[in-house]
Amino acid sequence: MSLIVQKFGGTSVSDAQKIKRAAQRVAQAHKEGNQVVVVVSAMGDTTDELFGLAHQITERPSAREMDMLVSTGEQISIALMAMAIHALGYEAISFTGGQVGIVTDSRHTKARIMKIDTKKIREELDKGRVVVVAGYQGIDAYNNITTLGRGGSDATAVALAAILKADMCDIFTDVAGIYTADPRVVPDASKLERISYDELLELASLGAQVMQARSVEFAKKYNVPFRVRPSYNDSEGTLVCQEAKDMEDIVVSGAAVTRDEAKITLRGVPDRPGVAARLFGELARCNINVDVIIQNIGSHGMTDITFTVPKGDLQEAMEATRKMKEELQAQEVSADSKIAKLSVVGIGMRSHCGVAEKMFSALAQEGVNIQMISTSEIKISCVIDESQAERALKAVHRAFELHKVGEKTGARG
Amino acid sequence: MSLIVQKFGGTSVSDAQKIKRAAQRVAQAHKEGNQVVVVVSAMGDTTDELFGLAHQITERPSAREMDMLVSTGEQISIALMAMAIHALGYEAISFTGGQVGIVTDSRHTKARIMKIDTKKIREELDKGRVVVVAGYQGIDAYNNITTLGRGGSDATAVALAAILKADMCDIFTDVAGIYTADPRVVPDASKLERISYDELLELASLGAQVMQARSVEFAKKYNVPFRVRPSYNDSEGTLVCQEAKDMEDIVVSGAAVTRDEAKITLRGVPDRPGVAARLFGELARCNINVDVIIQNIGSHGMTDITFTVPKGDLQEAMEATRKMKEELQAQEVSADSKIAKLSVVGIGMRSHCGVAEKMFSALAQEGVNIQMISTSEIKISCVIDESQAERALKAVHRAFELHKVGEKTGARG
Repeated sequence: MSLIVQKFGGTSVSDAQKIKRAAQRVAQAHKEGNQVVVVVSAMGDTTDELFGLAHQITERPSAREMDMLVSTGEQISIALMAMAIHALGYEAISFTGGQVGIVTDSRHTKARIMKIDTKKIREELDKGRVVVVAGYQGIDAYNNITTLGRGGSDATAVALAAILKADMCDIFTDVAGIYTADPRVVPDASKLERISYDELLELASLGAQVMQARSVEFAKKYNVPFRVRPSYNDSEGTLVCQEAKDMEDIVVSGAAVTRDEAKITLRGVPDRPGVAARLFGELARCNINVDVIIQNIGSHGMTDITFTVPKGDLQEAMEATRKMKEELQAQEVSADSKIAKLSVVGIGMRSHCGVAEKMFSALAQEGVNIQMISTSEIKISCVIDESQAERALKAVHRAFELHKVGEKTGARG
Repeated sequence: MSLIVQKFGGTSVSDAQKIKRAAQRVAQAHKEGNQVVVVVSAMGDTTDELFGLAHQITERPSAREMDMLVSTGEQISIALMAMAIHALGYEAISFTGGQVGIVTDSRHTKARIMKIDTKKIREELDKGRVVVVAGYQGIDAYNNITTLGRGGSDATAVALAAILKADMCDIFTDVAGIYTADPRVVPDASKLERISYDELLELASLGAQVMQARSVEFAKKYNVPFRVRPSYNDSEGTLVCQEAKDMEDIVVSGAAVTRDEAKITLRGVPDRPGVAARLFGELARCNINVDVIIQNIGSHGMTDITFTVPKGDLQEAMEATRKMKEELQAQEVSADSKIAKLSVVGIGMRSHCGVAEKMFSALAQEGVNIQMISTSEIKISCVIDESQAERALKAVHRAFELHKVGEKTGARG
C-alpha cells in the first residue's frame, strides 16, 4: 500500500464546487488502495480578506494575533474538504496544524517546522481514513498558533511527505506544471516533465513563483519526490526529484526574469586591498543581501564597484554606500532601480560548453546590453535594462530551443 | 482588585468599528483597575455563512467537522478583539476554547462544559493582560474541537465567571436589557432593573430570547450575578441575581408568548385509573416533552385528555396517541397547532393573591378564550388561539401595569 500526500492550493479550493472536485481526486487515490493525507490551503482570497480585516482594526497587528486570525482560513478548508470526502462515501477526518502535532518555533507569521508527531496521522490512516491537515500552520512549544509564511502549505505537504516517508507528494495548483519560462510572458514556453531540485531551487529563487525555495530545499534534503500538477485536469504535471544521469541531456531547463533588485555603483574607489571587504562588510551589518557584484580592473589606481540589492533595501543600502564613499575616499555613488535579471538554469551546463556564449549572442542579436554577469554551476544570470526584459527572455528562450524541451524530457524515471 | 467577565455577542462585534467600540469598553474596565476576561461570539452573520458553506458541500455535514468549521468564527473575533485592545495601548492575549482549557463532552454541536483549567487565564491576568476567550467552543478529551450550541457564548461567559469567582459578568448585547415583554410586540414594555434567576429562567423557557436557559441555570447554580447590557450605550441594563426580599414587591415581572407548541386532544377515554399514566408513559418513551396537560372531570364514565407538545414532535406524538386510542378504546384524536401560550412570571406571586383572577379577567374583557391553564409557583400560563396572542399579551401587560414595573424596581441591590 502506498502513502500519498496531496496538497491543494487556494485556487484549487476557492469554492464549494472546486472543493468537491478536489475531494473526488482524493477519493480516487484512496479507492486505488493508497493511504492519503490531504493538505489544504485557505479558500481563494480568504487569507487576503482576513489581512484586510486586521488592517481595518489596526495598522500594526501583533504577529501572534495575526496567526490566530489567518489560521482560521485553512481550518475552514479542512472541515469542508472532510465533509466533501464524506459526501462521496469515504471516511475522512480533519486536523488543524496544532491537533496533528506540527510543532514550530515561535516566530509568528514566518515560523519554521521543528517536529511533527505522526502518531495521530498513522492511527487515523490505519483506520482506513483520509487525513485532512491544515497547511501553513502549526503550534509552538507554548501552544500558540503559528503560521509558516508564504508558501507555507507547500512546506506542510513536503514536511509531512518526508516524515511519513510518502511514496509521492502531489502539489495541485492552477498551473499545468513547471514551464521552461513564465507562459504569460513567453507563449511558447513548454511544460517540463521532470526537473531536479537544484534547478527548481534556482528557478524558485528567480521568482518563477511555482513554489517557495524553502519547500524545495526541504524536499531535496529529505529526498521527497513531488509533482506540481494542475487541479483542473488529469495531467501528471512536472515531477521534481533528485537528478538522474539522463537529465543532463537537457543543457538548459528554464529561463526566468526577476525585477526585484536595484543596482548601486561606487565609482573611483582607490584600488587597494580590503576595500571590497570594508564596503560589503558594512552592507552585511545593515542586513542587506547583496546579490551580483562586479569590480572592474582598475586603472590609474582607481576602480569601480557595482552590485545589486533588493529594491526594498535600496535606500538603506545607498546610505551605507555613501558613508563608505567618504571613508574610502571614492568619487561618486549612483543607483539604478530600472534593471532586470535574466537567468538560464540547467544541470546540463556542468557537462556542456558554450552555454554562456549562446546566451550572450542571443542578447547581442536582440540589441540587449549586458550590464552585469553572474554564474553558478547550473545558472547564468545577466543584469539588463528593465525595459528590455521581456524581449531578452523570449530571445534566450528561443536560442536554447526551450519550447522543445518539454517534449524532449522523455519518459519519467 | 475586581475580576470582571465581559461577553460581547455577535451583533456587538459585527464589524471592525463595533469591535473597536467594544475594545474601548474593555480598556475602560481595565483602566479602572479591574482584571478583565473578555468572551466574544463570531462576528454578525459569520456562523450562518459558515453553515451555508457547509450545506453547499453536503446536506448532512458531520457534526465533528461542523464544529471544526464554525469554531473559526469566534477565533476570528478573538484575534481582532485582541488587536483592537492593543491598538488602545493595553496588553491583551487571545485564546481559543481549547487553548484556554475549556473541556467539554464529545457531543459535537451541543457539547456541555465539563471543566475549565484556569491556570493559563490566571497567569495572563497576573501579567496585567486582558484575556480574550473564544465563546461557544471547547475541546473534548480527545482534543477534538467542540461547540456548545445555541447561546453557547453566554454559557462560556457564565462558566468562566463562576470558576474564576468573578465579581461581575456583563453580557453585552443589542438590547437595552430584559423587558417586561417583547418590546417589538408591546411598545410600552419597560426595562427591568433587576430580575431573579428563577424569573428569567421562566422567561427564557418562554422564549423571551434574551438568554438560553442553560446559561441562566448555570449562573443560578453557582450564584454568578450577571448584567444583560446594551453594547451601544452606557446603560447598566438588567441585573440578574438571586432573589432578595424586596423583589417580592413586584408581583409580576414579565409576560411572554410562545408559539412553539401544538395541542392534542384525546376524547372519550374510559375514565379509569392508569389511563393517563399509560398515555404519557408512551409519549415519554418516544422522548416527547409534554408541557401542559388537562383532564376534564368525566361523565358517563368517559373523560377527555388534552396536552401540548413541541410542534416539531407533533407528528410523532399523534402517531403514539392514535396507537393509545386503540389500546385505551378512546373515541377520537385531534390536533391543533394554531395555539399560543401566554404566561406571566413573578416571584411576588408567592405572597400575593388574585394574580390568576386578574389575568383571566383581562383576557375575558379582550374576548380571548382560555383553552388550557397551567401554573407554577411563580408563573401562570394560558393556552389560547394563536391569532389572539398579540392582543392578549398587550391586555395582560396593561392589566398588571407592567409598563410601570421598570420604574418601580428601585435602586439596585
